[in-house]
Amino acid sequence: MAVQGQQAPKDNLGFDNRTERNRKRTINHDGSFNVRRRNYFFREFHLYRWAITCQWKTYWLVVLIIYVAANFIFASLYYLIGPENIVGINGDQASQFWQCYFFSLQTFTTVGYGGLHPRGLLANSLAGFEAFLGLMTFALATGALYGRFSKPEARIRYSPNALIAPFQGGKALMCMMCNDMNSNLAEVMAKINYSWVETDETGNPVRRFQPLKLEYEKVNMLALSWTIVHPITEESPLWGMSETDFERKEAEFLVMISAYDDTFAQTVYSRNSYVANEIVHNAKFRRPFYVDEHGYTVLDVKNLGEYDLLSA
Amino acid sequence: MAVQGQQAPKDNLGFDNRTERNRKRTINHDGSFNVRRRNYFFREFHLYRWAITCQWKTYWLVVLIIYVAANFIFASLYYLIGPENIVGINGDQASQFWQCYFFSLQTFTTVGYGGLHPRGLLANSLAGFEAFLGLMTFALATGALYGRFSKPEARIRYSPNALIAPFQGGKALMCMMCNDMNSNLAEVMAKINYSWVETDETGNPVRRFQPLKLEYEKVNMLALSWTIVHPITEESPLWGMSETDFERKEAEFLVMISAYDDTFAQTVYSRNSYVANEIVHNAKFRRPFYVDEHGYTVLDVKNLGEYDLLSA
Amino acid sequence: MAVQGQQAPKDNLGFDNRTERNRKRTINHDGSFNVRRRNYFFREFHLYRWAITCQWKTYWLVVLIIYVAANFIFASLYYLIGPENIVGINGDQASQFWQCYFFSLQTFTTVGYGGLHPRGLLANSLAGFEAFLGLMTFALATGALYGRFSKPEARIRYSPNALIAPFQGGKALMCMMCNDMNSNLAEVMAKINYSWVETDETGNPVRRFQPLKLEYEKVNMLALSWTIVHPITEESPLWGMSETDFERKEAEFLVMISAYDDTFAQTVYSRNSYVANEIVHNAKFRRPFYVDEHGYTVLDVKNLGEYDLLSA
Amino acid sequence: MAVQGQQAPKDNLGFDNRTERNRKRTINHDGSFNVRRRNYFFREFHLYRWAITCQWKTYWLVVLIIYVAANFIFASLYYLIGPENIVGINGDQASQFWQCYFFSLQTFTTVGYGGLHPRGLLANSLAGFEAFLGLMTFALATGALYGRFSKPEARIRYSPNALIAPFQGGKALMCMMCNDMNSNLAEVMAKINYSWVETDETGNPVRRFQPLKLEYEKVNMLALSWTIVHPITEESPLWGMSETDFERKEAEFLVMISAYDDTFAQTVYSRNSYVANEIVHNAKFRRPFYVDEHGYTVLDVKNLGEYDLLSA
Repeated sequence: MAVQGQQAPKDNLGFDNRTERNRKRTINHDGSFNVRRRNYFFREFHLYRWAITCQWKTYWLVVLIIYVAANFIFASLYYLIGPENIVGINGDQASQFWQCYFFSLQTFTTVGYGGLHPRGLLANSLAGFEAFLGLMTFALATGALYGRFSKPEARIRYSPNALIAPFQGGKALMCMMCNDMNSNLAEVMAKINYSWVETDETGNPVRRFQPLKLEYEKVNMLALSWTIVHPITEESPLWGMSETDFERKEAEFLVMISAYDDTFAQTVYSRNSYVANEIVHNAKFRRPFYVDEHGYTVLDVKNLGEYDLLSA
Repeated sequence: MAVQGQQAPKDNLGFDNRTERNRKRTINHDGSFNVRRRNYFFREFHLYRWAITCQWKTYWLVVLIIYVAANFIFASLYYLIGPENIVGINGDQASQFWQCYFFSLQTFTTVGYGGLHPRGLLANSLAGFEAFLGLMTFALATGALYGRFSKPEARIRYSPNALIAPFQGGKALMCMMCNDMNSNLAEVMAKINYSWVETDETGNPVRRFQPLKLEYEKVNMLALSWTIVHPITEESPLWGMSETDFERKEAEFLVMISAYDDTFAQTVYSRNSYVANEIVHNAKFRRPFYVDEHGYTVLDVKNLGEYDLLSA
Repeated sequence: MAVQGQQAPKDNLGFDNRTERNRKRTINHDGSFNVRRRNYFFREFHLYRWAITCQWKTYWLVVLIIYVAANFIFASLYYLIGPENIVGINGDQASQFWQCYFFSLQTFTTVGYGGLHPRGLLANSLAGFEAFLGLMTFALATGALYGRFSKPEARIRYSPNALIAPFQGGKALMCMMCNDMNSNLAEVMAKINYSWVETDETGNPVRRFQPLKLEYEKVNMLALSWTIVHPITEESPLWGMSETDFERKEAEFLVMISAYDDTFAQTVYSRNSYVANEIVHNAKFRRPFYVDEHGYTVLDVKNLGEYDLLSA
Repeated sequence: MAVQGQQAPKDNLGFDNRTERNRKRTINHDGSFNVRRRNYFFREFHLYRWAITCQWKTYWLVVLIIYVAANFIFASLYYLIGPENIVGINGDQASQFWQCYFFSLQTFTTVGYGGLHPRGLLANSLAGFEAFLGLMTFALATGALYGRFSKPEARIRYSPNALIAPFQGGKALMCMMCNDMNSNLAEVMAKINYSWVETDETGNPVRRFQPLKLEYEKVNMLALSWTIVHPITEESPLWGMSETDFERKEAEFLVMISAYDDTFAQTVYSRNSYVANEIVHNAKFRRPFYVDEHGYTVLDVKNLGEYDLLSA
């Protein structure tokens, strides 16, 4: 997405390179984008997407509301047909309505105690339809419940800071990650995109994006932690940049991880970003693991991203 | 699939290059093909495919018909066995049949109020079998319902027109797309195939296909919109083509998008096509996004594909 | 997997190249291998695999046997506890056992009419456990049922014959395929492996395998039919082979197709093979499609693979 | 991950190359890593992951405990509301509690015989809520049950030993694998990583990792067995290593297999490793298959990995 681009990188971010200066960070720490949409109204709504991604309290609230409302509707229908068509109903009118409601509950869930049961064509047909609808409705509610429960998810822990650290006689941009679940990750791939602000031909600030070359782009399996390394060679856009250059250019580094998770038997994705003030210059990561007395390698996730400042 | 083809593109469309002149567009705007099949009869029918892809009204109609029909069959069997084997049945013959039907409903849905219940070997066995079949049948119906509900789907919005726009001192074919859902798309890949009609050795019109080289074939994440660009260089089959050439050759551009959608945790596909009269020459897309007063980038999807005509 | 192999193909078939002469075809027309296994006993059995792939009649038989057997076991337990603990049981001993059985049916399916219902600690606890087990058992049975129903499946139709046909001034091995379902196939990839018998250093016949170079290895979408073409150039192992050479060498061509099916939202696989007597020399495929009076392209699948013999 | 690394392999294992000497094998024969984690507490726990991967006895124990506990809670609530609100309850206080429990069982499983059924607003509402919760809870329990049942799984059988065997005039490291299920594996890919201990600049022992080049990295289909071969050429890190070198360097070979399994319609993964004392020098694998009298190739899995020592 670089400009004028001989050897333009064949890989970019879907941010148009003419993006106006974006004063916010591009990717939040939870992986979401700092983008808002207009004129979306109902178009963007996708029921399944919503059911799978909304908050738990929203999910339960909506499911319970639907459950109660559906039963109210059917209770009203039974009441309209006439409570005398439900064997076992007695008492005054209010009580009769509630007994219609309870009969509906027992039908919708197919629990069907039978203390109340339908009599005659209409009540029986309605009850048969309600049982059908109850089975269908619960299929959606429980399907979404299990979908939420089993949703593939990457819990990648990133070092809080990226470092500019010594590397093979020169320097490199480094960040560290580990798996924050005890699942096995295979075919773990990392990408880092560098984003900065510069002035375009018309004198307006423009945010640009460019992928960075990594020492390794892939690890076959992630057993411990992985230090993702971009060596700052002469080809690197970071070559010769001072600490203040990072601030001035509003540098942001977008880290993207994909991995095959054997629990979900699927590829999972994770994103993170580091802005200028999260870059530590001239420092070195501490090792987050050690070998214990029994010969086991122990990964101490709380230590992930601890570093030592180096004297200049 | 180009002809005589040294450097034949290693990538094509499954349309045989000898396809006779196709007077209709090859791909409709909804992504379906303009192809009909013969001698398919029952071979091509796949129950699951049908259950997942048929219209909602068809789905509900068929499910309800099966539900009612299955209960009629079981009602008839209970009636044949003898309504006296269902405890609680009374009244005349017609009424007895209906009560058999209601007993069947209550068994098939496993609601089993018990106001009606079976007596004796035959009625009990049949009821046991019906409950079994009911559970199995509802498993298929609810499975298909949830399958429809959770079906992976790409809602890509395309610009209504493709443009021939200025690009890096020359020209390029451009179209624009964005995600029309608020899901996150990663690893978004685009392909454009150019299709045109020419005259073959025997003097017959032949439709040919050739993939076009894109500036970028992939964006890592689609946060905003993406302008897909085919630079019209000397290597391009569009090099030197005038506006009337597009019409005369019945040019059609097939756009194919694939992307990983993190809601469905799957790769989703989308297709679109532009025919000659949907190509606007010498124009430039307007940016469909802006930065608002809070520093957020705002994507206005209604504006996607708006363009300015350039003076020659 | 070719021998001595400078430029050994980096791609093979998992058949060891030292395979002894295999008198049967390697792949049957239904895609299964002509390989048998020994010392597999119970190791190779995988319950889910079996439940998904066994024949329908086997599936239903096993599910019904489990259903009946489970109910017999529970009926016996209720009978042992004492039929007097099931309210509503009466009659002689045989009848009492059958009523225990019916009570079990009504509990296992959770239909629970209530004409029969448990009394006392033991009968109630057992009924509670049976209802639990019934729900679990039906979850497996209905899960497998839906798994069978929704199993991803490629229905690729292959031409009955492969041809040696004229191609670009020379010759090519060609076979034809189309989708035999009305689903959309994208990213369709083909591979052909040539397999033949020759004599090794020790004078024993050995079956060898080698992948063939294809004109196109991939079509982006399969709208009509696809003619898979291996040009017989000087580099081809088929170069200079006469018709009798195909017989003598027991030539077999293994065709492997993979494609993304948008119904299943998954990649599906298909295999086929052509042995020497299924190769037609000096012939040309007829086009299996035509444009009808309304401008639609019509694919006539019955014609797929029809060919014209060419005069030498 | 090799050192000083010009031409560093673009592919590694996620073990940091500065890993301290690991006295245990890196990968156990069951594919798990010899790594422990600290400070994980509740963070690493993922309910779905646990439900899918825990042992069967744990799964059943936890599901039954939840089932019993949920019913105790509801039984207590019904008892608090007053047993007189459940029609059919009689006897002394203890007996009444148990009858509340049985009513709860019948509601939670939706079996609802009706011998016991609720009366009044509170009991009916609670029963309606319990039936709802029961359906939801069973959806999770049965979903996890089916998830465990249908979990994609590779059953790859590896030869117990890796061999240093003659190969094309030189030597090669070889191991053998086959599919231990009768499913079809396609697109089978293998990787071998060599891991050894050496002394770093500071004199400390360091474990290093390097991928090995394979003769073939992929077989299109796995019909029989596959011998994975790393030719020990001058470029190989094993070049010139004696048998004692393998011991001294604590050599370990990590084998990783991925394959598309058509039962699960998914890619499955398998890992294994060979340590120094599992390497047999100067030996040759026996063929694990033969052609029987009917012309079928028979794979004898028990023989997989049998070898003949060669005289020097």
